[in-house]
Amino acid sequence: MAHIDLGNELPGIRGPMAFRPETARPLNELAEILLRDDNNTLSRGERELIGAYVSYLNDCFFCQNVHGGLAQHYLGCDMQYIDAVKQNPAAAPLSEKLKALLVIAGKVQQSGRAVSPENIEKARSEGATDREIHDTVLIAAAFCMYNRYVDGLGTWAPEDRQYYINRAPLRAAEGYIDFDLYK
Amino acid sequence: MAHIDLGNELPGIRGPMAFRPETARPLNELAEILLRDDNNTLSRGERELIGAYVSYLNDCFFCQNVHGGLAQHYLGCDMQYIDAVKQNPAAAPLSEKLKALLVIAGKVQQSGRAVSPENIEKARSEGATDREIHDTVLIAAAFCMYNRYVDGLGTWAPEDRQYYINRAPLRAAEGYIDFDLYK
Repeated sequence: MAHIDLGNELPGIRGPMAFRPETARPLNELAEILLRDDNNTLSRGERELIGAYVSYLNDCFFCQNVHGGLAQHYLGCDMQYIDAVKQNPAAAPLSEKLKALLVIAGKVQQSGRAVSPENIEKARSEGATDREIHDTVLIAAAFCMYNRYVDGLGTWAPEDRQYYINRAPLRAAEGYIDFDLYK
Repeated sequence: MAHIDLGNELPGIRGPMAFRPETARPLNELAEILLRDDNNTLSRGERELIGAYVSYLNDCFFCQNVHGGLAQHYLGCDMQYIDAVKQNPAAAPLSEKLKALLVIAGKVQQSGRAVSPENIEKARSEGATDREIHDTVLIAAAFCMYNRYVDGLGTWAPEDRQYYINRAPLRAAEGYIDFDLYK
């Protein structure tokens, strides 16, 4: 049960979003632009993977499964692959560019001040653009917000990981804005 | 100098916001609703104080001075008072309700999972409503994003704290949306 009376039984972030739709709107708009907008040289799958990784580092069960589920949907892989990336991105079969961006995301999860010029230089040497570095930092920072929002209010989450895998195609199709928050 | 070429010399969060206005819009809308909207039983000064406190815990110089400056402007106090609250809210002359909300904000800064039922119960016993607890959690979570965005990109910040005090009345009057990001 959540720490406050949300007036609904929705899981994860959807509970407080329905409780306070005024703040839900910009929270969803941010997710839509960062994670789903097609005007981006990082694929949707890569961006969701960054979000899932940061959510894993923050130990947020709901977010790492929602966004891990979306990442496996977009990337056409299975959850074993997503779990392997979360647990040890350096050893996973990923592009060197994405590995370098995940290092930056992991630093942002610790603290913005933990990101070093060497982390940036490494990403750039693997072909990352300034815009890709920017978006990686903001995605990682945004998940440090979403994760804290979900867990700071003590929301509940379905324990069966298959729930998130099953929902991923619908969420991928509908996006973060064009769905009814109250369903 | 920032880690990436932002194409402008703006300080703090304004640099990456001008670099990527698509994401700046929901980031500013969120700040406007959370920190400035009048439909809230927490005053603007109290909400800015929560943001300044979390920014202090995250060691973000730019944000703690921007929002500390706004808090002292709204509360009609001086920066010594703001600094005393940031360093030890339990010992500062604050309402018991605001002290309990700052405890929750400090827990959220560590991790969403650090917030305990006892933290919530204490706030409630001091008169905090569910909506006030919700907004405190989301303000704290949002500053964990803003702080990481500012420092994760290595943005620069004016070192003179008077700069932020001088700007506070204009920012308070214009808000987070109705100002030209590129100025």
